[in-house]
Amino acid sequence: MSINQFEDFRVKGCVCAPFTLLKDDGEINFDGFEDYAKYLVSQKFTYLFVNGTLAEGLSLTLEERKQTAEAWVKVAKGRFGIILHIGTNNYKDSQELACRKIGVDAIACFAPSFYKPDSLETLVEYISKVASAAPNTPFFYYCINFFTGVYLNDAKFLELAESKIPNLVGLKHSSRELPNAHRCMMVNPKKFQVMIGSDVQLLTSLSLGIEVPVIASFLGQLFDNMKTAFDKVDMKTASKYQCQAQEINTIRSEFGAGINVAKAMFNIVSGLNAGPVRLPLTDLSQEQKQKLKEKIDSTGIFK
Amino acid sequence: MSINQFEDFRVKGCVCAPFTLLKDDGEINFDGFEDYAKYLVSQKFTYLFVNGTLAEGLSLTLEERKQTAEAWVKVAKGRFGIILHIGTNNYKDSQELACRKIGVDAIACFAPSFYKPDSLETLVEYISKVASAAPNTPFFYYCINFFTGVYLNDAKFLELAESKIPNLVGLKHSSRELPNAHRCMMVNPKKFQVMIGSDVQLLTSLSLGIEVPVIASFLGQLFDNMKTAFDKVDMKTASKYQCQAQEINTIRSEFGAGINVAKAMFNIVSGLNAGPVRLPLTDLSQEQKQKLKEKIDSTGIFK
Amino acid sequence: MSINQFEDFRVKGCVCAPFTLLKDDGEINFDGFEDYAKYLVSQKFTYLFVNGTLAEGLSLTLEERKQTAEAWVKVAKGRFGIILHIGTNNYKDSQELACRKIGVDAIACFAPSFYKPDSLETLVEYISKVASAAPNTPFFYYCINFFTGVYLNDAKFLELAESKIPNLVGLKHSSRELPNAHRCMMVNPKKFQVMIGSDVQLLTSLSLGIEVPVIASFLGQLFDNMKTAFDKVDMKTASKYQCQAQEINTIRSEFGAGINVAKAMFNIVSGLNAGPVRLPLTDLSQEQKQKLKEKIDSTGIFK
Amino acid sequence: MSINQFEDFRVKGCVCAPFTLLKDDGEINFDGFEDYAKYLVSQKFTYLFVNGTLAEGLSLTLEERKQTAEAWVKVAKGRFGIILHIGTNNYKDSQELACRKIGVDAIACFAPSFYKPDSLETLVEYISKVASAAPNTPFFYYCINFFTGVYLNDAKFLELAESKIPNLVGLKHSSRELPNAHRCMMVNPKKFQVMIGSDVQLLTSLSLGIEVPVIASFLGQLFDNMKTAFDKVDMKTASKYQCQAQEINTIRSEFGAGINVAKAMFNIVSGLNAGPVRLPLTDLSQEQKQKLKEKIDSTGIFK
Repeated sequence: MSINQFEDFRVKGCVCAPFTLLKDDGEINFDGFEDYAKYLVSQKFTYLFVNGTLAEGLSLTLEERKQTAEAWVKVAKGRFGIILHIGTNNYKDSQELACRKIGVDAIACFAPSFYKPDSLETLVEYISKVASAAPNTPFFYYCINFFTGVYLNDAKFLELAESKIPNLVGLKHSSRELPNAHRCMMVNPKKFQVMIGSDVQLLTSLSLGIEVPVIASFLGQLFDNMKTAFDKVDMKTASKYQCQAQEINTIRSEFGAGINVAKAMFNIVSGLNAGPVRLPLTDLSQEQKQKLKEKIDSTGIFK
Repeated sequence: MSINQFEDFRVKGCVCAPFTLLKDDGEINFDGFEDYAKYLVSQKFTYLFVNGTLAEGLSLTLEERKQTAEAWVKVAKGRFGIILHIGTNNYKDSQELACRKIGVDAIACFAPSFYKPDSLETLVEYISKVASAAPNTPFFYYCINFFTGVYLNDAKFLELAESKIPNLVGLKHSSRELPNAHRCMMVNPKKFQVMIGSDVQLLTSLSLGIEVPVIASFLGQLFDNMKTAFDKVDMKTASKYQCQAQEINTIRSEFGAGINVAKAMFNIVSGLNAGPVRLPLTDLSQEQKQKLKEKIDSTGIFK
Repeated sequence: MSINQFEDFRVKGCVCAPFTLLKDDGEINFDGFEDYAKYLVSQKFTYLFVNGTLAEGLSLTLEERKQTAEAWVKVAKGRFGIILHIGTNNYKDSQELACRKIGVDAIACFAPSFYKPDSLETLVEYISKVASAAPNTPFFYYCINFFTGVYLNDAKFLELAESKIPNLVGLKHSSRELPNAHRCMMVNPKKFQVMIGSDVQLLTSLSLGIEVPVIASFLGQLFDNMKTAFDKVDMKTASKYQCQAQEINTIRSEFGAGINVAKAMFNIVSGLNAGPVRLPLTDLSQEQKQKLKEKIDSTGIFK
Repeated sequence: MSINQFEDFRVKGCVCAPFTLLKDDGEINFDGFEDYAKYLVSQKFTYLFVNGTLAEGLSLTLEERKQTAEAWVKVAKGRFGIILHIGTNNYKDSQELACRKIGVDAIACFAPSFYKPDSLETLVEYISKVASAAPNTPFFYYCINFFTGVYLNDAKFLELAESKIPNLVGLKHSSRELPNAHRCMMVNPKKFQVMIGSDVQLLTSLSLGIEVPVIASFLGQLFDNMKTAFDKVDMKTASKYQCQAQEINTIRSEFGAGINVAKAMFNIVSGLNAGPVRLPLTDLSQEQKQKLKEKIDSTGIFK
């Protein structure tokens, strides 16, 4: 590839952060991937962000992450692009996940969180080491400070990393401070794409020119509707969908806001069965699930 | 007044959170208020949020807060509405500030932060006690969690307070999580107004229908330009101004992001002299101020 | 006084951090001070730390703090030394409290917590400004980081402050990290006294040579017993009393661990009535108080 | 084994948390283990806590952790007992590390830290799942809240886990709140042993009856001296050694306090070469190492 091989790389459309399908015994349900993929097509998703936070990526073994990655690549063919998350707590594991040639479109990695980098320079060095294991694959830095506890300046990360990580093409911003995402976007908009990793910062991100979100499986159609309205400068309609996203999220918050709730919501909304979550996450009780269903139904959003 | 006396109360336009003018000896410079007011008129502000966080309200004595409030009321006449912040760490002081009949349009109060309320119920009880000291004045709850350390659910505060604080008309949301402000706005939009207290969440707030920001003295014209563009659905122009606000804020961050930097910026941009800050805040050095000026000048924003 | 006027100042014995006596209507119950003082004499206390955290100092108005200080000075005469806490959120109020000549033995002040000093240098400057208002009174810095949110290095504070605050005689360490208190003690043991502000770090502090604790009203006799055993190198007996202190604290934790619980415990143990707490603190319910009483009784410690 | 097989299990003496020996290329230096073991014998250690936090356990791959565990078991034979830390971020990996029959005396596991258990019940369930993989091996819960971010009540963990984790024999308390360790010790002293994981809470722990610390490689002799004095009730001598431990730790703090500093200290003090640390940790510069050496030398402690 040319020296500019990464310049033209842009994620387009809408990215789903799929859950990991589990069986009742806690093992991965590989049989369910095809149906899940069909659902995601119907939801208008164009990319999958695989093995990320919603997928309980860090609760999976390395072997499970490899298998899951391959399973997603297989069902995604002709349907979705794949961004593979390879973040772990040690760079060797992340390198191993990164260098496998299984046909992903891009990789992504977050900051290590048990031992935390003590400076931006160290973070760049760490991420560089990981990204260098797949030098020909576009690479996204994945910032999610409230999970990793690494509160460093993301925009400065991009500035500093620009000359040191050749395959860096942008970042996925799942931290909560939207102005920081805006600042990231302003660093080098021609080179770095910013994706927003939030279910409730959709319209606000669009208003900043951040066009691609990474969201839960059941929000694809909603975002598609919102984006259509926004592109027509129909702010009133766009705003209606943002309110719906907020409403869904408020319900999620009432049950604790966790990944367990999101997964239960998905099962309810999609009619599919993504199964339980894995410890240290815990499932909602049957009673809670019933109440959750009633709340969701009462919104009329997914009718 | 009728039982619906507060229903029609709405802040319109743009609110300034003015600095407290200090002399070199640290005492309040009451002589400067008139010139400051003229500047704020030129910046298109319509309201002043007095004795808030940017004003170093909690570094002032009760007597100084009273005098400052009166001084602002005096120069505001015919120019601005006044929202008086009366938050302290004990309800008696706040009540004393609230009940004085000096002609403010509304009052506001944040959560006590040394002893923190341990539940929403307690917060409502505390705020109710304060608000009841001025039962005929519209009242805003002021949420600024990263200063107070009180991380409670603001939307639920409104729900819970609705029946208990008759003069509650809304909240000023200065916490960083914009989706929470959106959620507050959805509680009872007819009754509760949400103002956004952030210099860098302007366009994003507008996109959510949050029309009134509370911002630093030097951003009024910028916001006015942005709002004009937004009202014409000229998103491109609106976005340009949001980028400028971000750029200014990025410069502020480079010098530590504090109130001391904002005040120094104001002195540079306005040509007025708001003076130093008070301990425990500390002023930038002359060298830092010079560099700050150069950075601001290089943006061309305030030309 | 000579230049060495502060060298010989040492707090000896055991310091009580008394509660503020309140009436049911929330006003201060000045009638109760004499009986409270008698109880504290019976508990072997030698000093009172007035208007501190347990006393809800920051929930009192300046006028109430003055009155309370005077009331304590009056009943303490011939019974206790007085260390007056004058910390507030602005140095002017603290100076005003410090400079009143009412006959206290020492004053103490914590870091401002709404606006936080951004460096040790700033903290020293702030505390110096306050301490200088009472230049002939021994001064303690009061560190309680989990309340103020000011996590600075206390030992370095002493090193830095030594040449800048002439009347600095030590610190009260109420932060939870005991090794930090040890480090403070090693800075200049001849000059700086360290007192430990914790109900459950008594024996451990003694083992480090930190001999004077600042504790709740109902623990004086227990500490006296422990200290007597420790001085006889009877570690087994000393350890028994440490277990009792822990047991009491565990019960307190079961009800939320707050100042409200400590005050309710005091009422139960002493038979006196210190009254309710003030908002934003809230009282235990009658049912909780009954359960608390049963738990305390079941330990047999205060029989 | 009988149902009481775990009752008599007690760690005695002093536990070392060894560093992982690395070569300049970042790979594990297995050749160095024998010399390291000899050094640790000379330092009077009786147990090794393998693959813990100081060992950068979470920066090692699963395979490296297995190899390291085996290497330590091999050189420990006849010299030390082995407590193997098997904590990771997913229970499957931890189970895999736990169930290997390589001849360790006990295993230990901390709370998962990326996805955090949301309640004590969940933590018990998670730890139970891991501990059950090695049902015949004594098991320690390892609490280190400032690394994991899991701030749950450790004493209540023991109470709750007692009936659910048959092989639970105690906990290693590396959190900073010493009173919590004391509380843990009081839960069921006959059944649960508490070890203190801190280099600066030695004498204070002894005063509470917590006799076994888990400490850095270079502190064994110092602790042995302190313990000998303490057992003779020679508090003055014991106190001298506690001051030395504090002095060493203060020097460590001056260079950032991290594991990188501790490892550099070890290299200086022992004359051995444990090598660099692994990203995301970073090594001190040569200049820093030189300064560190001078500071250590100036104390005279390790002469």
